[in-house]
Amino acid sequence: MTPAPFAERLTERTLQLQTRLCLGLDPRPELYPQREALREHTLALLEACVPLVACVKPQLAFYEALGLWGMQLLEELCDAARALELPIILDAKRGDIGSTAQAYAQAWLSGAHAGAALTVNPFLGFETLDPFVETAQANGGAVFVLVQTSNPGQADLQGGGISERVAEEVARRGAVSTGLSAVGAVVGATHPDALAGWRARMPRAPLLLPGLGAQGARPDALAGAFLPDGTGAVVSASRGVQYAQGVSVEAGVQAARTFRDQLNAALTAR
Amino acid sequence: MTPAPFAERLTERTLQLQTRLCLGLDPRPELYPQREALREHTLALLEACVPLVACVKPQLAFYEALGLWGMQLLEELCDAARALELPIILDAKRGDIGSTAQAYAQAWLSGAHAGAALTVNPFLGFETLDPFVETAQANGGAVFVLVQTSNPGQADLQGGGISERVAEEVARRGAVSTGLSAVGAVVGATHPDALAGWRARMPRAPLLLPGLGAQGARPDALAGAFLPDGTGAVVSASRGVQYAQGVSVEAGVQAARTFRDQLNAALTAR
Repeated sequence: MTPAPFAERLTERTLQLQTRLCLGLDPRPELYPQREALREHTLALLEACVPLVACVKPQLAFYEALGLWGMQLLEELCDAARALELPIILDAKRGDIGSTAQAYAQAWLSGAHAGAALTVNPFLGFETLDPFVETAQANGGAVFVLVQTSNPGQADLQGGGISERVAEEVARRGAVSTGLSAVGAVVGATHPDALAGWRARMPRAPLLLPGLGAQGARPDALAGAFLPDGTGAVVSASRGVQYAQGVSVEAGVQAARTFRDQLNAALTAR
Repeated sequence: MTPAPFAERLTERTLQLQTRLCLGLDPRPELYPQREALREHTLALLEACVPLVACVKPQLAFYEALGLWGMQLLEELCDAARALELPIILDAKRGDIGSTAQAYAQAWLSGAHAGAALTVNPFLGFETLDPFVETAQANGGAVFVLVQTSNPGQADLQGGGISERVAEEVARRGAVSTGLSAVGAVVGATHPDALAGWRARMPRAPLLLPGLGAQGARPDALAGAFLPDGTGAVVSASRGVQYAQGVSVEAGVQAARTFRDQLNAALTAR
């Protein structure tokens, strides 16, 4: 059975639980005495944070760095998230051409991963987004296209109007939807002044804002990313939750609660 | 023990065996009756093509699409290539920021993959290349940065001087080397008129030219990508070898031999 569209599930959760926080789970092996501790902490944190977060975002790099064991952990984590009915954003920033893009879409947006969202890098050209978008739409998933990333050097290749050009393409592909579309965008929470502009340029795109916590974005500066009803965007924190104080689940839950409340307060204040 | 630098191994092989062909191995499950046949054909083709090719390039998308079993096959393939002393280009087009880029570099350029090369997407900014370049240099590997990809739509985000800007950055990072550097570039074989320009702009960069075979690039148009001594570039064919005539190893070997000879003839003719 195809899951309900990703954006619909995200909106429902945002409104029901009053949370705009996306839980990044990026396990760093150097912080654990052994792999089993990494596995247990990551899975326990997922379960403990469920009532506080709109979705979960594993960053694939950290699982790939753990080899086959890590890829197995990623599948276990996704199984657990699905069992908890938590929407999953696979942060993989994949991008390639033709049948290769199709293979990536098959890997991460269909089969066991049907209903997930995937971050996608548009550098190879707009035609290369099609297999991702089509596979996401067919499976109740979504794509989040990189529009303006959160790092200081993003302007090297995203400046000079390029981010705007990508945003235009995201908006065009989402225009057919009535509500939020399956074509979302990544816009860094570290560029707060740009957020209202991105929101206006891509009216039907769910937005993913990375950069909370370790990267220094302030929750009270992000209200511009949301639609008038307070939906349409999620803000992700990874290290700032998972390693709020070493590897404590309790401290992670407390950090997630604080981020959730700060994001809600920013929306109430606007 | 750290392997000899990637570019050095590639050059040595090119000169010793007189081949500029890179063997793409992108197993497509729909072409096999079952997975074991896919596995056997892919590994057999690798072994049979060793005397004919300068390096091997698995495209990670196709292994990821096969799930954990596919990732295991990828490791098996890489083990086999290392045992055959065949340089490996992991075509993963990874790109991310800060510690995430570091995690990708750790995954694919160190440990079991020390000495491999990795294709890298520069869209997130030039600073994001650093972890890849440093890890490659420390482990006898290399990176191939996407400069001008082989697909028709590449100009969407690579046009307007962007490819040239990336090439400049590749050249700058390679300038410290005496011979070919650890910082290479991907330039599509489908843009033959641009190749001599890329060669001149990035004098120390090993070049990877995809697009031979299924994508329609002609071997006789590619001489401009090579240094005067006939080294400095490899041209990859994937479907055109692996599925030259269905899934025959013999036909694949024949196709590889033909491509190798055509590339050599193009160099002799210039």
